[in-house]
Amino acid sequence: MDFASIAGILSGLSLIVAAIFLRGDLSNFLNIPGIMIVLGGTIASTLLTFPLGDVVKAFKAGLFVLYEANIDPNDMVKSIIKLSNISRRQGLFALGKIKTNNLILKKGCNLIADGAEEDIIRNALRTEIESLKHRHLNIQDVFIKMATFAPAFGMIGTLIGLVQMLNMLSDPSSIGPAMAIALLTTFYGTILSTLFFLPISGKLKARTMIEVINMEIIFEGAIAILKNNNPLMVFERLSSFIPPQDRTISEREVYKL
Amino acid sequence: MDFASIAGILSGLSLIVAAIFLRGDLSNFLNIPGIMIVLGGTIASTLLTFPLGDVVKAFKAGLFVLYEANIDPNDMVKSIIKLSNISRRQGLFALGKIKTNNLILKKGCNLIADGAEEDIIRNALRTEIESLKHRHLNIQDVFIKMATFAPAFGMIGTLIGLVQMLNMLSDPSSIGPAMAIALLTTFYGTILSTLFFLPISGKLKARTMIEVINMEIIFEGAIAILKNNNPLMVFERLSSFIPPQDRTISEREVYKL
Amino acid sequence: MDFASIAGILSGLSLIVAAIFLRGDLSNFLNIPGIMIVLGGTIASTLLTFPLGDVVKAFKAGLFVLYEANIDPNDMVKSIIKLSNISRRQGLFALGKIKTNNLILKKGCNLIADGAEEDIIRNALRTEIESLKHRHLNIQDVFIKMATFAPAFGMIGTLIGLVQMLNMLSDPSSIGPAMAIALLTTFYGTILSTLFFLPISGKLKARTMIEVINMEIIFEGAIAILKNNNPLMVFERLSSFIPPQDRTISEREVYKL
Amino acid sequence: MDFASIAGILSGLSLIVAAIFLRGDLSNFLNIPGIMIVLGGTIASTLLTFPLGDVVKAFKAGLFVLYEANIDPNDMVKSIIKLSNISRRQGLFALGKIKTNNLILKKGCNLIADGAEEDIIRNALRTEIESLKHRHLNIQDVFIKMATFAPAFGMIGTLIGLVQMLNMLSDPSSIGPAMAIALLTTFYGTILSTLFFLPISGKLKARTMIEVINMEIIFEGAIAILKNNNPLMVFERLSSFIPPQDRTISEREVYKL
Amino acid sequence: MDFASIAGILSGLSLIVAAIFLRGDLSNFLNIPGIMIVLGGTIASTLLTFPLGDVVKAFKAGLFVLYEANIDPNDMVKSIIKLSNISRRQGLFALGKIKTNNLILKKGCNLIADGAEEDIIRNALRTEIESLKHRHLNIQDVFIKMATFAPAFGMIGTLIGLVQMLNMLSDPSSIGPAMAIALLTTFYGTILSTLFFLPISGKLKARTMIEVINMEIIFEGAIAILKNNNPLMVFERLSSFIPPQDRTISEREVYKL
Repeated sequence: MDFASIAGILSGLSLIVAAIFLRGDLSNFLNIPGIMIVLGGTIASTLLTFPLGDVVKAFKAGLFVLYEANIDPNDMVKSIIKLSNISRRQGLFALGKIKTNNLILKKGCNLIADGAEEDIIRNALRTEIESLKHRHLNIQDVFIKMATFAPAFGMIGTLIGLVQMLNMLSDPSSIGPAMAIALLTTFYGTILSTLFFLPISGKLKARTMIEVINMEIIFEGAIAILKNNNPLMVFERLSSFIPPQDRTISEREVYKL
Repeated sequence: MDFASIAGILSGLSLIVAAIFLRGDLSNFLNIPGIMIVLGGTIASTLLTFPLGDVVKAFKAGLFVLYEANIDPNDMVKSIIKLSNISRRQGLFALGKIKTNNLILKKGCNLIADGAEEDIIRNALRTEIESLKHRHLNIQDVFIKMATFAPAFGMIGTLIGLVQMLNMLSDPSSIGPAMAIALLTTFYGTILSTLFFLPISGKLKARTMIEVINMEIIFEGAIAILKNNNPLMVFERLSSFIPPQDRTISEREVYKL
Repeated sequence: MDFASIAGILSGLSLIVAAIFLRGDLSNFLNIPGIMIVLGGTIASTLLTFPLGDVVKAFKAGLFVLYEANIDPNDMVKSIIKLSNISRRQGLFALGKIKTNNLILKKGCNLIADGAEEDIIRNALRTEIESLKHRHLNIQDVFIKMATFAPAFGMIGTLIGLVQMLNMLSDPSSIGPAMAIALLTTFYGTILSTLFFLPISGKLKARTMIEVINMEIIFEGAIAILKNNNPLMVFERLSSFIPPQDRTISEREVYKL
Repeated sequence: MDFASIAGILSGLSLIVAAIFLRGDLSNFLNIPGIMIVLGGTIASTLLTFPLGDVVKAFKAGLFVLYEANIDPNDMVKSIIKLSNISRRQGLFALGKIKTNNLILKKGCNLIADGAEEDIIRNALRTEIESLKHRHLNIQDVFIKMATFAPAFGMIGTLIGLVQMLNMLSDPSSIGPAMAIALLTTFYGTILSTLFFLPISGKLKARTMIEVINMEIIFEGAIAILKNNNPLMVFERLSSFIPPQDRTISEREVYKL
Repeated sequence: MDFASIAGILSGLSLIVAAIFLRGDLSNFLNIPGIMIVLGGTIASTLLTFPLGDVVKAFKAGLFVLYEANIDPNDMVKSIIKLSNISRRQGLFALGKIKTNNLILKKGCNLIADGAEEDIIRNALRTEIESLKHRHLNIQDVFIKMATFAPAFGMIGTLIGLVQMLNMLSDPSSIGPAMAIALLTTFYGTILSTLFFLPISGKLKARTMIEVINMEIIFEGAIAILKNNNPLMVFERLSSFIPPQDRTISEREVYKL
């Protein structure tokens, strides 16, 4: 559970509600047709822009980003060093029997156990990393595009309201409230973009960065195991991917893993 | 037929129409000269920006994107593994007799059957992929530019309307409707950009990504066939291009293809 | 003569003029000082931004883009295959006597005839291509910058008009026309940017893409001639640069060239 | 202590305060709910966009950038030449006993002393540099995003104020002050973005550039020490990273270090 | 002396002044506090964004760009061919005695005369070119950032003026002039950005491009001298960096240099 995200959304929304209550009535800021045109229009343009499968994946990822924990790169380094020790003691073939639900780690182990050449392992894992990056970028892109569609539909809603108001100028007392309603869609579009779509795309980007680091650790680790490198060298090589202050594995631990 | 796209356009337009009906008359939002200046101006600037051939290609691609199905990368992997099995059983020369309407796959087969060196095959296929990417980017660019021209002509139309209104301030009752009409071109320009041009360019980008993945599968597959790799290795190498959850080929199938 | 461009400019301008005539007087939209500040200011900022020589080159290129025809890449492939046949029959030295007004093709032929090593030919031609690209990008950049300067000077003109109007509010009847005149410079700036500068930069980009393809054909062709490759291989290699549906040379023709 | 930064903030703020005092009352420009919605909303969206750890790191970095001095690249070159002289006199093993609080320099020395191959040293240090760059870019990104969130929340605040004002048009005398208050959030958002968030991200970028230069000096220096290069060659190689006019080490000094 | 730049600034400013005179009083457009907030605020944010040393370098470069002439790449090619002839006649060692105030050319000559290996010369000169590019990009960046700060402070000034005006609506006759003054800062910010900061950054970019071409000529020339290449080959190789129509050296001249 990602408490910073929950705190961010709640504090952002309550600040806006508090600002509204200070000098007026919350009901002036609720306009169902306005919400429908902004939210509905944004979803419509998103369905047009991306294949349906990508939109579904993006929405799932956007929800899970608040719940799922990332794998700590330190744990990934530990797993690789363990595999390195196994392969040194029991031979490369032993890696074929490893159980893991990380598909790329599994693929790397299988390729090594099958006796694939370094070149093939490098290419296969590199392609996995590159296509994972592409898929993640694509999912971030869904929310980045939504962040541009929402204010555009906000403006479309405001233009509809303004045109309607300008055609009914005969009753001066209705001008103010009519214009207020017209502005609400711009208000909704800006909030959706600034407090939801842009932050979600940012959070997904942060998660991608950690996943890519884990993939790079698997990649370099697989090569190191194949070359039968000294575990300390493997550790020195892999720990470079983790910020110095976040490294939790000591050199002494390496041989005990 | 791409139902998500059809649903997107219909729901987007009907939301806008519904919002208009809620508080006014649809006829206030129809202005033929306004539509002509925004749509006509956008087309004029597009014809100036791109060679005529590119505009025609882009419009065809924009229409077909709703109908044509992409080739599933899983099918492409299967085709390559089949070719790999053929070449192992009947020799590389057999690939020259393969029939396919994928021009790049055909070219790869011909080059292998003609006994071209790996280097020449790599260069020729790489150039095909790069020029395909360039052509697709160019076609996306037509719609990206249209998405910037439409709001600009919307603004030009609004400025024309405002200048005309400001020169006729003597009749106060005409100010409102005149300004309403002036705003309509901005309204048209924003809708064209947000609900049509940007989404079409996005859909074309998604299609390009799948086509490039298919091309990369052909490229790596051709090299693997040339090197007479083990079909299981070919499968491991090529399946890396497909997201793990979308892979429909099992390892057991490989030898039966 | 590029008819699509001419049609684009004429239709764009006539749409705007028609929209003006529909509800008013064309004279309300002509303001010589406004045109001078937008056009003059844009040219002034352009002269400050780029060396004089680059601005002159850009303006020439902007004019010629409507008249000059590009070399068809198919013709370039044919020329290279002809040269390949000459060099196979008469020796590499024969290329020194080739006459062509394409300076890079000439340079490639001379270097081959002079017996330069592959490495030197590669580097020299690659540098020619890269500096051609840089020069073309620079020329496109002149029009891209003009497309940002024009609306900025439009806004400067409008601000001047607004400040003058706000200092003369005592006569209410003059407010409307004064504000109309103030808005005209924004109108001019937007038209210059959307209907002239952006499209010209786009057209120059399209032309650059074709020239670069021709250069790449020369580059790969020179290497192939040097390696004394089979003409059919040369053809397969070079035709990759042309979109499949635009290839006009058949394999049978290759040996007859 | 970075006096230019302190002078910049103080002069920027005092210019704005002076401009306010010239023609009015400072109290008109203080609106606590407005400040809360802009600052609070910006922080809320930032917490949503980035992992909590990154936001904390960014805020620390943003504060320290005014106090901490960078390491002068000239000093780094001197340190490397000293290490080079030590390794030539006492052997590579002596580098293992070097004390330094630069973690990457320490890692390089340890790897050399442990007898790692050039390839492993290159990869490990290159990865350290790349992940340092990524972490720094991420921290700059926090402030770049804040610079876009602040004006967006300024606009949200202004829209709230406008909607409230438009619903209370019955009292004309309150329109002016109500609209003034509405505009204040836009004012706050623009100042936060222009005078704080953008400049801090710029300052962090400048610091990153110097740190990366120092890392590159360590990288090239480690390779040069491993190859047992002549100290003068090491000096010539490493001084290339420093702008010519900032180089403070003379060639004569090199052998005395 | 760069006459195009002087003509650009003078014509740009005089067009604006002429436009003001046509329909009003120049004094309405002079507002010292407004100029101070835009210019002062821009400088304050710039000092916050960049290290003081970079701002000073950028301002010097911005002034010198109007006076200093660039080195013609043709002259650089001639110098390199002369050095090539010297080294062929007197040996590589003779290059150590060459006098030049181009620091990179000097460094290249020294490294060759000291007998450095090709690899070391390549790396040292490549690093010099890359760090020169970085430093120049940094200096351009100062003016690019100033071009974004100036309109932002223009908007801050306008918001201050609007808030003050809205709090003093009781005197209707003061509204017009007060709003006119408020708009002036936006006017100043736009002029500073469009007529000064953006063009200076463009001019610096053009100069960087020529300097980088000269550096590349030195780089390739040093390698060619080291390999003792034929002067005609050196000439063919180096002239590729110069646009064909600007090449002033004929092949006959090469041996006479």
